[in-house]
Amino acid sequence: MSASTTGIVREMALKARKAAAALAETTAAVKNAALIAMADRLEKNKAALQGENQRDMDAGAQAGLSTAMLGRLELTDKVIAQMANSLRQVARLPDPVGEIFDMVVRPNGMRLGRMRMPFGVIGIIYESRPNVTADAGGLCIKSGNAVILRGGSEAIHSNRKIASLMAEAGAGAGLPDGALQLIPSTDRALVIEMVKLEGLIDLIIPRGGRQLIEMIMQHSSIPVIKHLDGNCFVYVDDDADLAMAREIVLNAKVQRPGVCNAMETLLVHSALKETFLPEICRALADKGVEIRGDERVRQAFPQAKSATGNDWRAEYLDLILAVGVVDSFDEAVDKINAWGSHHTDSIVTRDHRKAMRFLSAVDSGCVFVNASTRLSDGEVFGLGCEVGISTDKLHARGPMGLRELTTAKFILLGDGHVRT
Amino acid sequence: MSASTTGIVREMALKARKAAAALAETTAAVKNAALIAMADRLEKNKAALQGENQRDMDAGAQAGLSTAMLGRLELTDKVIAQMANSLRQVARLPDPVGEIFDMVVRPNGMRLGRMRMPFGVIGIIYESRPNVTADAGGLCIKSGNAVILRGGSEAIHSNRKIASLMAEAGAGAGLPDGALQLIPSTDRALVIEMVKLEGLIDLIIPRGGRQLIEMIMQHSSIPVIKHLDGNCFVYVDDDADLAMAREIVLNAKVQRPGVCNAMETLLVHSALKETFLPEICRALADKGVEIRGDERVRQAFPQAKSATGNDWRAEYLDLILAVGVVDSFDEAVDKINAWGSHHTDSIVTRDHRKAMRFLSAVDSGCVFVNASTRLSDGEVFGLGCEVGISTDKLHARGPMGLRELTTAKFILLGDGHVRT
Repeated sequence: MSASTTGIVREMALKARKAAAALAETTAAVKNAALIAMADRLEKNKAALQGENQRDMDAGAQAGLSTAMLGRLELTDKVIAQMANSLRQVARLPDPVGEIFDMVVRPNGMRLGRMRMPFGVIGIIYESRPNVTADAGGLCIKSGNAVILRGGSEAIHSNRKIASLMAEAGAGAGLPDGALQLIPSTDRALVIEMVKLEGLIDLIIPRGGRQLIEMIMQHSSIPVIKHLDGNCFVYVDDDADLAMAREIVLNAKVQRPGVCNAMETLLVHSALKETFLPEICRALADKGVEIRGDERVRQAFPQAKSATGNDWRAEYLDLILAVGVVDSFDEAVDKINAWGSHHTDSIVTRDHRKAMRFLSAVDSGCVFVNASTRLSDGEVFGLGCEVGISTDKLHARGPMGLRELTTAKFILLGDGHVRT
Repeated sequence: MSASTTGIVREMALKARKAAAALAETTAAVKNAALIAMADRLEKNKAALQGENQRDMDAGAQAGLSTAMLGRLELTDKVIAQMANSLRQVARLPDPVGEIFDMVVRPNGMRLGRMRMPFGVIGIIYESRPNVTADAGGLCIKSGNAVILRGGSEAIHSNRKIASLMAEAGAGAGLPDGALQLIPSTDRALVIEMVKLEGLIDLIIPRGGRQLIEMIMQHSSIPVIKHLDGNCFVYVDDDADLAMAREIVLNAKVQRPGVCNAMETLLVHSALKETFLPEICRALADKGVEIRGDERVRQAFPQAKSATGNDWRAEYLDLILAVGVVDSFDEAVDKINAWGSHHTDSIVTRDHRKAMRFLSAVDSGCVFVNASTRLSDGEVFGLGCEVGISTDKLHARGPMGLRELTTAKFILLGDGHVRT
């Protein structure tokens, strides 16, 4: 770590710590007004924001980023409107802070329940898409947490502008200074500094590839909720409604292939290997999808390339699909649990018993019956937007919204109760 | 790590992994029958169990363990009956596995909710009291998790016997082989081997002192829920019912001083420094409690020793109490948050507004109003017993019962739903 950067994040965290204490007692009215002010500020400064975004786009083009990557980076009018709308949606959601639930009267007459509280200070580390700055920042503020954001280097100018507009609007609406901060440098040493600030930062949420997350796991002394890759599976059962299966498979793969909830592996029951299997491969190929299949897939659809071991575990984020044939429901479940990334997996079947068994047996954050994996999304789930999609098991699985950004402590209301 | 031990825990974890898959689908009827069989087996083999316990007691006496430590180690008839009763209580609780909750119909007609699932394999590392083997083991089985237990070296013979009796009874009742295992050696290298088994073990729960937990945090690649020490505070407000305050303070300190939910620090409002303060110090001293006070406490009660900086953060587990005077409610809250261990803290007050502010402002797993900290306990809370008391914020705060040993995934029931 260079001497010039040492301590930068620590200073930010100390400021965030103070802000968090104030933010925990800030009313929903003030937080909501701040979120709406942030949305307005982003829209009013669209031109300036797009100017900064252009600097990132130019640098990205020069650095040879793919068209897909550049697409994720670009702040179009529509993306800016979506960021603003997400903030307004989060403002409309109920405030989770202070919510009391599961209150019971125990046999000795004391009242026992739970109360939701902010974590305190949350550090979020993410790559590429600058809208995460607005979504994750807004959710942290609404849930009463101070947040330190660290976006990807390719979006640094866009992220700086979004964060400064949001921080200004928040301060104007009465949020404490330091409630929302962005690490202004792309120095990786600062990420390492950040994840070692135990006692100042309460939770680290990394969104990104395996390399980023392994680096964080190696260095972090703070609890981490991992948002790893999405190798999402669809299993088309022999009892599937085949017209429905076709719609779901096409939607899951081609509606937006560059995101984590797009299907990356399709499993088809062997009873369908001469009917549905070649038809769906043809339909996918017609949409530009490259099929990588096992032996029976290549028999059914000779244009398919040969799938290697890596293909079953790959997150392509592209118009590529691994396709395999399985001989039973159990084989499908075993392969999903072994090869998937525990993100989102779906079965297409008309058989009730298999539908219910799939829900129990698949060990993923989101388990779907007769639905596209693309529906795995905070906004679709009614969370306003999302911090990301947890692939961990502890605390939060699947899309993380306001509730997942809180903790639940026990509260006890006694009247002189003692232990006897 | 010696060559003879390398791989022992890995073998156990591989076996646990297989057991976990079967256990996740084991019905509540089978799990409950197993828990009841375990309780019966412990009681029927009381003599053999106490024989093994005597070996630990003899070794402990030779090693110079304190009377308090030996008391925690001893398996009296009463302690064995309590272990059996806890297992029977856990058998009577509802099965959390498969519980579906928060089910809603989204605007597009799809049904979205959450389903509780076991973690899979849980590793629990604990010190001294052998009843933890039964309590934690029973809760893991009921929540569908395979468990690998690692008790303290001073209780090794007792723990081996408890675990083998429970495993035999469980197998006889139909639990999968490997559902409940205890590491049979006291080699610390095995703890390090255990916490590095990412992918085989899903969660590590360490109960113990700072040194043990820091060692685990340093080596673990698996998510950890820490159960650190209990520096529990009681704050007697100037608006307290003083008779109630006296009962609560005495109960919190002397009813059982050697456990983590006993009060270790008492804060008294300065308005009470000439009335309640000397009286309570005298009453505590009459019960054998050594008072370590700040300057104003020593003025009010000259027999008090002088409290040093360490006293405000100490977990004595003994008849010693740090006592301080504060000038305001806010000062009390600030000191609890700064000095406490985020375990259990209580206010005694008749003032409703201060009671409610205390609930929000104190950042601990359990926050009490007008009740003794000794009530912070899984059995008292209705959880049957407890794995321990989490001092962490992620996933579980306070006493951990069945629900905290499960994860909640999203489930979605569609009818051909796709993303548009």
